Amino acid sequence: MNFASDNVWGVAEPVMEALQAANDGAAGAYGGDDLTSDLQARFSEIFECDVTMYLVPTGTAANALSAAAYCPPYGMLFCHDESHIYIDECGASEFYTGGAKLMPLAANGGIIEPGLFADVVNIHMTNPGHCSTPAMLSITQATEFGQVYGLDHIAELTSIARDHGLATHMDGARFANALVSVGCSPAEMTWKAGVDALSFGATKNGVMGADALLFFDGKPHEGLGSRLMRGGLLMSKSRFLAAQLLAYLADNLWLDLARQANGTAGKLADGLSRSTHARLVWPVSANEVFAVLPVDRHEKLKTAGAIYHPWMTAGPSRESETGQDEILVRLVTSPSTPEKSVDEFLAIVGG
Amino acid sequence: MNFASDNVWGVAEPVMEALQAANDGAAGAYGGDDLTSDLQARFSEIFECDVTMYLVPTGTAANALSAAAYCPPYGMLFCHDESHIYIDECGASEFYTGGAKLMPLAANGGIIEPGLFADVVNIHMTNPGHCSTPAMLSITQATEFGQVYGLDHIAELTSIARDHGLATHMDGARFANALVSVGCSPAEMTWKAGVDALSFGATKNGVMGADALLFFDGKPHEGLGSRLMRGGLLMSKSRFLAAQLLAYLADNLWLDLARQANGTAGKLADGLSRSTHARLVWPVSANEVFAVLPVDRHEKLKTAGAIYHPWMTAGPSRESETGQDEILVRLVTSPSTPEKSVDEFLAIVGG
Amino acid sequence: MNFASDNVWGVAEPVMEALQAANDGAAGAYGGDDLTSDLQARFSEIFECDVTMYLVPTGTAANALSAAAYCPPYGMLFCHDESHIYIDECGASEFYTGGAKLMPLAANGGIIEPGLFADVVNIHMTNPGHCSTPAMLSITQATEFGQVYGLDHIAELTSIARDHGLATHMDGARFANALVSVGCSPAEMTWKAGVDALSFGATKNGVMGADALLFFDGKPHEGLGSRLMRGGLLMSKSRFLAAQLLAYLADNLWLDLARQANGTAGKLADGLSRSTHARLVWPVSANEVFAVLPVDRHEKLKTAGAIYHPWMTAGPSRESETGQDEILVRLVTSPSTPEKSVDEFLAIVGG
Amino acid sequence: MNFASDNVWGVAEPVMEALQAANDGAAGAYGGDDLTSDLQARFSEIFECDVTMYLVPTGTAANALSAAAYCPPYGMLFCHDESHIYIDECGASEFYTGGAKLMPLAANGGIIEPGLFADVVNIHMTNPGHCSTPAMLSITQATEFGQVYGLDHIAELTSIARDHGLATHMDGARFANALVSVGCSPAEMTWKAGVDALSFGATKNGVMGADALLFFDGKPHEGLGSRLMRGGLLMSKSRFLAAQLLAYLADNLWLDLARQANGTAGKLADGLSRSTHARLVWPVSANEVFAVLPVDRHEKLKTAGAIYHPWMTAGPSRESETGQDEILVRLVTSPSTPEKSVDEFLAIVGG
Repeated sequence: MNFASDNVWGVAEPVMEALQAANDGAAGAYGGDDLTSDLQARFSEIFECDVTMYLVPTGTAANALSAAAYCPPYGMLFCHDESHIYIDECGASEFYTGGAKLMPLAANGGIIEPGLFADVVNIHMTNPGHCSTPAMLSITQATEFGQVYGLDHIAELTSIARDHGLATHMDGARFANALVSVGCSPAEMTWKAGVDALSFGATKNGVMGADALLFFDGKPHEGLGSRLMRGGLLMSKSRFLAAQLLAYLADNLWLDLARQANGTAGKLADGLSRSTHARLVWPVSANEVFAVLPVDRHEKLKTAGAIYHPWMTAGPSRESETGQDEILVRLVTSPSTPEKSVDEFLAIVGG
Repeated sequence: MNFASDNVWGVAEPVMEALQAANDGAAGAYGGDDLTSDLQARFSEIFECDVTMYLVPTGTAANALSAAAYCPPYGMLFCHDESHIYIDECGASEFYTGGAKLMPLAANGGIIEPGLFADVVNIHMTNPGHCSTPAMLSITQATEFGQVYGLDHIAELTSIARDHGLATHMDGARFANALVSVGCSPAEMTWKAGVDALSFGATKNGVMGADALLFFDGKPHEGLGSRLMRGGLLMSKSRFLAAQLLAYLADNLWLDLARQANGTAGKLADGLSRSTHARLVWPVSANEVFAVLPVDRHEKLKTAGAIYHPWMTAGPSRESETGQDEILVRLVTSPSTPEKSVDEFLAIVGG
Repeated sequence: MNFASDNVWGVAEPVMEALQAANDGAAGAYGGDDLTSDLQARFSEIFECDVTMYLVPTGTAANALSAAAYCPPYGMLFCHDESHIYIDECGASEFYTGGAKLMPLAANGGIIEPGLFADVVNIHMTNPGHCSTPAMLSITQATEFGQVYGLDHIAELTSIARDHGLATHMDGARFANALVSVGCSPAEMTWKAGVDALSFGATKNGVMGADALLFFDGKPHEGLGSRLMRGGLLMSKSRFLAAQLLAYLADNLWLDLARQANGTAGKLADGLSRSTHARLVWPVSANEVFAVLPVDRHEKLKTAGAIYHPWMTAGPSRESETGQDEILVRLVTSPSTPEKSVDEFLAIVGG
Repeated sequence: MNFASDNVWGVAEPVMEALQAANDGAAGAYGGDDLTSDLQARFSEIFECDVTMYLVPTGTAANALSAAAYCPPYGMLFCHDESHIYIDECGASEFYTGGAKLMPLAANGGIIEPGLFADVVNIHMTNPGHCSTPAMLSITQATEFGQVYGLDHIAELTSIARDHGLATHMDGARFANALVSVGCSPAEMTWKAGVDALSFGATKNGVMGADALLFFDGKPHEGLGSRLMRGGLLMSKSRFLAAQLLAYLADNLWLDLARQANGTAGKLADGLSRSTHARLVWPVSANEVFAVLPVDRHEKLKTAGAIYHPWMTAGPSRESETGQDEILVRLVTSPSTPEKSVDEFLAIVGG
């Protein structure tokens, strides 16, 4: 019963096989290999446009590099107040931008409301030279709370951003989970809705350690390759990053894996919503379940070996959602989460 | 009728005379002059302890250097969500720390509540290595809204900070105004209440351009002199900075100037509170008045040549305090603000 | 005939097998897995002391993090003027330190002379507060020119460093190649000779993408884990990094691989030194050969499909070593370089 | 006998009077005052072109901001290996650029040779993405060794820079001294010779603490105002900076002061060159004299109260110019240096 995170699980077998297959002879280093070129073409195909791609070992790297691309040191990046880039990356975006300011927005379930975003951007535009310059919006799809933006919602946010001269980045650590949840095309969920750059997450969904930063804005992004190198992020044997992602994208593997993880989460949510001992904090649309449990059930689950994280809201403006003798927990599923773990978990929670 | 800021006014005459007096012969550069040594001794006398002093040309520099002293790049600095360091210094603290995270706390009138501070610090201590490390608290005295912390309040905050391993900095851009308002000694308002470092502001209170960063913690702060130099902040003809502050501190000039400015603000506040056309947002304890005026009176004032800033709350969690046809304005007084400006202003607002 | 670099080749089979073997069930993320603990213990065993270990995806990351550990933003790091950290990492050490100064030392074959190092350190200690503070020495073993420091030479450098309060880092991108060349123990080549930290390179020697930063100095290095995260370097599925290195260290695989690569380089060097058409720039002690070839042979080699880099000295003080109609080339061997590539290369160069 | 530096002396009387005159009533802060506007116009007049101006409290700030304007974090800035920005500013340019690389060039008397510059730039252009990107050249006029570039020499350097896509900055800490030495117009020594930006130094030449960063390139330099603020460099009572420089530029005061300082240096150099006990290292063209003295005369001078700095060459490639029992010293004159100090000094050195 391991629901700690999607990254506690291993690698999908086709990805592992691709690594073995790529291990033959010599190949150009630092992105000069054929697989990297193939992957670039594959991404452009999947996203139906000319994509500029940077391969990175972690999603945090993709997020922070996108910030460096759009936000000068004296710039301001808007995000929700419990987003990964704001509180879980130890200041990676501050680091890669050279000290930009991340402005947190209160957001239920991590979904930023257009009205609040517009208000806060406007306030920060009234005092240039004293206030950091609004430069960028980052949204997470699916959010850190498993919520999924609708396409119109995304378009509304990116439109406000564009009107104020801001770029929009999407943190897609769980992009595939959101995609199969919304049921649209990759292009529709990104550049067709006004998104300029995407952290294309794969590691949480069955890859060993390979994500990509994709740009849809047609700009050169000079210097980003240099930033990759000076970040210590440019892997020399690049073919092995590309091989992972090519296998991930082949034959709809990525979508199948995400459907599997979402399905497991859905089953878990379903069971919890039917129990008198649990209540869901948000509807479950992807592969994360946030539930309030009685402390005694929580103890029982721990005793039985269940692994998951109690959750605390960390943003500056949030109130606690739990009563006394209750605990808020996060349960994450992956493509590898065994179905019997769900059954076992629900049995302990009880009806 | 200029209430735009305390820094639109000039220099107190004794300070100007001190500059002229200091302009004689050769003197050591970069702090190697006698006046700088004298000032160091004078600060230690006034604060009743061994003070470590760095002279700077701006208050922003003092604030940002204190952040660099206490907060590593991967650290977190707590401040209120409309503080000068958070929204008015273009990210100076992010810059000097190398990209630390400033965590904004909602705070009425800029006064941070101990309970909220303790809660937020605790939340950010649960995920080390992912979350930036809580390292420092910065409070403003008097606040950017003219509010003044009581000594017990300060002690309570610094005690929470210390218990969690955090240092406490006080932004004293209007330190003298707060001091005469509280009516205590400099030592009582700082290190005796647990404050480790102070941005000692003087420029807003009759000095040309000279502030000081003072440390009370007895630590060496190695490297701070180097940071001063690499910030372009180390003025070669240092004697002229020291001369300004020596004159400012002589014969209680600094306290007299602050009393003058506070008195003028008090008179203005008094008049407004008696008018049916205005309402004060907060009680006035120092040299800043925040009032809500009808838009038509605001127009009249502008037409009559009154200069001041309409104000918007910029923090992520604040609601507007104004109704329709109303405007929130900030009125700042200085030691040089003519009394007749106040009379004229009140006359236009009306009874 | 690919002599472009050791990182154009793939992964040793036992390393690949270890990845497959590690892909089973769930495991703690971000270093919380058993393999990472095992590896920590294994490194301590191999280096005969308590080692503090950070796993990274690239050697550049290890180098830059060591700089961050020892060199403050206002610090100075001494290195040779054509070292990887100085000219091939796009300023990674400047980035991770927050803008420290790398002071280049002229060095034949990348070997820093103690006398020059001592002189330059002393000069930079005479003007504190104006000059960046000497904080760290970094040496490369084997050097970027395939030269290998003797143990006494290392000890002499680290002794000067220590006497001036500087830490010593060793860039061991080709540590194994140097180790088998010197024929000593890992401990002897590092902490017993006064080295405080080591970038333990493995990727160039048969690993997919996994290096380690090792500290021997017994200090806590608080904050380095945070720096890893904010650099985007902390891989979530950490077990796969650890698995690679455990396999690399098992059964002396790493030393066997290095011996193989060095042997191939030795054979190549041997052949070139016997040819009338080539001359070696430095003796060959590890897996890199620097040779001057006539341009016509160079053209022939290229036509025959040989891949390698013409080399230019990039440091500020070096003179060219080549005559007219000559070219300086770098030839790098790896454990996978086919012996027949050497034969073919030598045949084209001629006797 | 104080020859320690030009910044140990005070302020020219007209500058002091201008400060007093500016101290009247209220004026816009942060550059919103009339004097600042007047100064901008005055600079454009003097330089015969539309100048973009930023006022700063120190020359180091001007240098570092120019680096931030032209050199990205992954960029490379070329300068001579004993320049102020390279070894005397504690890494200010590294700080303001976010960790760019300053590439030192060996240069006799601080004068960079075009051939060497072209060679080194070319080398660093061969490995983009691994090597920092050449972005900027900075030259010092007059140099830190009192040498003065001829106009053709400047044009040759800026032409190489431009051909490679680099901007050229001139550190004019002693701009006026160089100008009267060359005997040309400000425009001729800067933008007409291809210079894009100038640190216009005034503090060393009779001003209290006010320098300017001037751009001639017609570009907007968006964000530089923000960088000024986040550097803690934006002085609120800006009128007092502008007042100093307006007085400095009025009635050719600046040129008269520089002529005075140069004349005193010339007299000193003349005397030393005629002595059998001293030898000049470089011809004296501005207000600095570098001389080799016998140690016994040096002792005598110190005993008699002479103040000056023994000098050591700090660059990585320089050889010592002094024999045994000799010492290299730097003697700097200012407009305020008393003529009798020169006489006294020369008398002790002897004939």
